[in-house]
Parts: sequence; structure tokens; C-alpha cells
Amino acid sequence: MQTLSVALGARAYPIHIGAGLLGDASLYAPHVRGRRVAVVTNAVVQAHYLGRVEAALRQAGADPLSVVVQDGEQAKSWSELDRVFDALLAARVGRDALLVALGGGVVGDLAGFAASVYQRGIPFLQVPTTLLAQVDSSVGGKTAINHVRGKNMVGAFHQPLAVIADVASLDTLPERELRAGIAEVIKHAFILDLPFIDWLEQNIGKLLARERAALEHAVRRSCELKAQVVAADERESGLRAILNFGHTFGHAIEAGVGYGEWLHGEAVAAGMVMAAELSERAGTLRREDAERVKALIGRAGLPLRGPKLALERYLQLMQVDKKAEGGKLRFVLLEGLGRATLRADLDQRLVRDSIVAALQ
Amino acid sequence: MQTLSVALGARAYPIHIGAGLLGDASLYAPHVRGRRVAVVTNAVVQAHYLGRVEAALRQAGADPLSVVVQDGEQAKSWSELDRVFDALLAARVGRDALLVALGGGVVGDLAGFAASVYQRGIPFLQVPTTLLAQVDSSVGGKTAINHVRGKNMVGAFHQPLAVIADVASLDTLPERELRAGIAEVIKHAFILDLPFIDWLEQNIGKLLARERAALEHAVRRSCELKAQVVAADERESGLRAILNFGHTFGHAIEAGVGYGEWLHGEAVAAGMVMAAELSERAGTLRREDAERVKALIGRAGLPLRGPKLALERYLQLMQVDKKAEGGKLRFVLLEGLGRATLRADLDQRLVRDSIVAALQ
Repeated sequence: MQTLSVALGARAYPIHIGAGLLGDASLYAPHVRGRRVAVVTNAVVQAHYLGRVEAALRQAGADPLSVVVQDGEQAKSWSELDRVFDALLAARVGRDALLVALGGGVVGDLAGFAASVYQRGIPFLQVPTTLLAQVDSSVGGKTAINHVRGKNMVGAFHQPLAVIADVASLDTLPERELRAGIAEVIKHAFILDLPFIDWLEQNIGKLLARERAALEHAVRRSCELKAQVVAADERESGLRAILNFGHTFGHAIEAGVGYGEWLHGEAVAAGMVMAAELSERAGTLRREDAERVKALIGRAGLPLRGPKLALERYLQLMQVDKKAEGGKLRFVLLEGLGRATLRADLDQRLVRDSIVAALQ
Repeated sequence: MQTLSVALGARAYPIHIGAGLLGDASLYAPHVRGRRVAVVTNAVVQAHYLGRVEAALRQAGADPLSVVVQDGEQAKSWSELDRVFDALLAARVGRDALLVALGGGVVGDLAGFAASVYQRGIPFLQVPTTLLAQVDSSVGGKTAINHVRGKNMVGAFHQPLAVIADVASLDTLPERELRAGIAEVIKHAFILDLPFIDWLEQNIGKLLARERAALEHAVRRSCELKAQVVAADERESGLRAILNFGHTFGHAIEAGVGYGEWLHGEAVAAGMVMAAELSERAGTLRREDAERVKALIGRAGLPLRGPKLALERYLQLMQVDKKAEGGKLRFVLLEGLGRATLRADLDQRLVRDSIVAALQ
């Protein structure tokens, strides 16, 4: 097991990474301490892992209540949030309670938001069981549900007490979701860490083959990189926005094809290709480096091209993106490999040309 | 105008108290600073004050959007919260926006909670127009909506950027709501400030006659007292619980007769009589001091007796109170006038006897 720390002062917390951790009572015990415990999960994860987590929690002294929410993105809704509240209130769970988010990014977002507002806030643990959640969504304290008018429009910054990332739980992850998780690993490398890009180029095959040591390294390095950014800018007032590399285009793709058609990581992958194209046209990234971006995404089996929507539709969808503040669209560009910058001053024509080029 | 400060470090904020403040552009200007501004209010307050607030905001450089929610406690619901989100999203209000809560405690709770979770949190101003909101709910950052299984079960601690308490807005307040607001003023005096009890005994008539100077003093002193408690314990982990004096009984009264039948302040008034009775029986309050508690509540025209519910019903309703943690009901007792203490170790028989005695 490896343990990192997210340096957030009074809200600092550990990320434990290793195989078999979700059944390890000693990782839950420091947080249970006589509290009522409720586990939020979905049916798919329940079948694989809930029993093991409940057993570990019992060993740690808790008598856990479990709440099973819908599978998929539609769980990030008020009705599923209310299902969690209802279960907690029916069981008279008070403020001195602990929530455990057991599942992927959706469960983490939903359960984390539930914890942040239930009786004005209770603590929670993230036990991510997908690669995407382990390398990205479980770290940083962003929680949210969706609104009919946009994704993640209602939420909170609520840091967990700890993250327990069990790489053995990736054994049951569908192939497509594994690749989608790798997209965010690659993203962290592109924006922050050239040596990690080199490592990924050499080890992408091992990741796809789910070799434990490779997965553990990728999760650890991703979490380290994200944790550094989060520690420097917890509430996304500046630096943290670089984590949105590929996301302005990616969100447009997800919305354009209908949420759920493309996985988030797949949309981000195609979005990163567009962003690399844009970086090249804006003069911040050399052509050969943009080629390395595309090559690595391709080798991970991720889409290099966005869906064939009209250019105007892309632009319209990007306007809705909440990062469109003060009327100006902001883009994260690569300034060489392993360095990113936030730009709000880009010529609209460069954006249009990049989308067109990336779709060809 | 008088200005106090709530000492919360980076989240410190001013409370401005005076007549005519809600139309004063100079109080809004430091917070507008080019931000999109949305005002949340209800139809009753809209009719009296929205035009003046909008004019002041325009003078301060904003082009305010207004969202009118339902009157009354039923506004503290997911559907009204969603109405606010929908209006903001339809108008493409981004994260760099400011919400203004214009109204009583319900509007403040709803709009404050909306601000705390809209796009993971935007800043807001409290412009309380009821006495209850001016002396209590607008100060301290507690925001919430209700759940079918309990009041204030979903919410957040979200401090405003400033509170603008216009005592002239109390001119239009119904008599019954004025008295209900005085209940919380009296509560602050009972738990924290013996000289303020003396002042209230001498000036209760002026408050009921809405004399501006008396109202301004009562609002200021109440806010000072509450601000001290909040500064010492922002998230209610200890001391802040003394602000719930009379509330364990009061919540039972509100729930027992159906929310809205009794005003919150009325229920708290009868609850304080029960809590004084309990303090006397527990040996922490002398009989003559308990009599002063009752006398002042009576002179304010507030109810001295709870509704005639069965004793068992009271006990059952109190169990639901969220302060019933770890199976033990906690009560705030007076330790003499102007001093309060939190007790979880009380003999159940004392509680029963106090309720019975207070209902006679």
C-alpha cells in the first residue's frame, strides 16, 4: 500500500492506494470511531464489493446501513439524492455519522454531495472502484448533481476524510471504462509531468493488461499530480482550471451526443486532441509534441475524433459550458508537453479551425 | 447606521443596522464589482421592497435578475430551490455572480442554500426584512431547506458577504411576526446577557410600538451576542448549541401542531418556558429567575403554554429532533439569568415533569 497526502491544512487527508484495500478494516477504523455509518453504492458495485466493505466496517466497529442508488449518470439527480436523505432520516442517522461512497465517479459525486448537505454536512470516505474515480474524481473534493440545464450545476466542495483506492477492484471494470480512466491519467501527464508521459508511452500496454504494479504507479502519480493542484487552489479560482484540459471540447461532445453515449473519458480524449490542435495553432505547442499527444491517446484505444456534429453546434455547446464566464470562452492550452496554461483571449477563428481540423 | 463584524477570519463579514439601508447603493457597491446579481424574494416582500433594492443595485452598477419564490415555510423545498437554479441557469448566470436574499428567514435560508450549492458555491448578501431574520437567521451562515422527514435537514454553513438589516422594513411586518422576532431577542438575552434582560424589561413596550431607536438597539445587541457565539463555534460543534435554548421543546411544538400553525418564535417562546421550568427542576435556575423568564415572554405577548398535546406525543416529537444524538436528548438549561449550559444527562422524569407543569 502507498499513502499520499492531500495538503489542505485542517482538511488534509490521505489517499491509500493498493490491492485489496477496500476490505481492510484498519483503513476504516480511524474514521468510524463510534459513528453511525452509511454506505452509498449502486447495484453493479454492490454485487461485487458491498459485502466486503460491510464486513470491514463491522470489523471496524460499525453497523453499516447501505443505500443502493441507480446506475449511471442519471443517479446524479435530485431524486436519487433524496433517496439517500430519506434512507438516512428513516434510520435516524444524525449529524455524527460517516458516509462511505463506494463506486465510480457518479456514486462519489452523489454521495459526496449528499454528505456535504445532509444536516448541513457530515464527513465521508471515498472508496473509488473505477480507474476514473481513483485517478480523478475521488480526489479534490468536487461533488455535484446535474440539472436539466447542465451537468454538475448543483454541488459543493467537500473534502473526504480519506480516499481508499483499491486497484484490485479494477479487475471487474469493463474494458471501455478502463480506457476512459486512462484518458484522465494521460491528461494529468500532459498538463503537468513530462517524465510521466514518457512512462505512459512505455507502459500503456501494461495498463491495458491491468498489471497491478503499473496500475498502482499510474494511480499514485495521477493522484500526486492532482493533489498538488488541488492543494494550491482548492476552490478552482485559478490554477485548478488547468485540470480542465480537453474538457471544454469534451463537455460539448458529451452534451452533443447526449450524456451517456460517450463516456466522460472518451469525450475528454477527443477533446484533448482538439485542445492540442488549438495549442499548436496558437503557437504554444510544437507539431511533433501535438503528434505525441495524439499517438498516446490512440495507443490507449481512445477516440481521436469527436462526433460528426456541425461546427456551429460545437461552438454553441461550448458556450453553455460554465467556464464561459464574462462572455469569454476559456481554454486550457499546452505550453509544450507537461505544462499547461489558461487562455481567455483566443481568436475565435483559431478555435473554429482547430475543431474542423480535429474532425477530419 | 451601526456596523458590527462577525469575526470569522477569512469569512468575516459586516452587519449593517439602520433605517433605510436596503435602498442604499453604497452598501451593495463593494460586493457587486461587475458581478451578475440575482435577487431572491417572495411576493409579499417584492410588493414592498424589491423596487427599492433593484434601484440601489442598478445604482451600484448591476443589472439585477429577480426570482420570486413562494411565500411561507413551503418555499424551503427542493422545488423552490430548483426554481432559483432554473432562473439562474436560463439567464446563464455563471460562478462569478452574487445572490441577494431579500426577505425573512425562509427566503434567507432558501437563497443562502441556493448560493452555497449553485455551481458549487457563489457569494450572497442577506437583506433581512423581518425581525426574526434580522436578529437571528441572517447571522451565522446556517442555510437549509426542509425534507418531508424533518425541518432543515438539507443545508449548508455558508456565510454571507454582508448583512444589511433595515429596521424601517419592520414597519410593514405583521404584529404577530414582530412578537415572534422578539422571542429570539429575548432568547439571546436569557442565555448570554443579564443587562440586556434588564433593558428588555424596561423597553419591551417601545419594541412592540416599533420605536426605531429601541428596535435598532435590540437588533444590534442580538446580532452582537449571536455573532460572538458563531465566531467561537461556526459549525455548531459545541458552544453554538446554546442558541437552541427553548428549541428542543419548540421544534416539538411546531411539528406537533403542524408547521406554520405556530410561528417559530411563538413555539420557541413556549419552549423557553418549558426549558426554564426544566432548569428550575434541575437546580440550575432559581424560582424567581424562572418567573422573570415567564414574565418577559408574557409581556411580549408571546405564548407561555405549548399546545395541549399528550405528554407522550411531546416526548416522541422531541426524539425526532436532530439534536437527539447518540440516543440522548440534549437540553439547553439556564444557569442563572444570562448564562446557559448544554446538558445531555438529564433524568427523563425531570423532562416529563417540566412539560406537564408548563402545560398547566
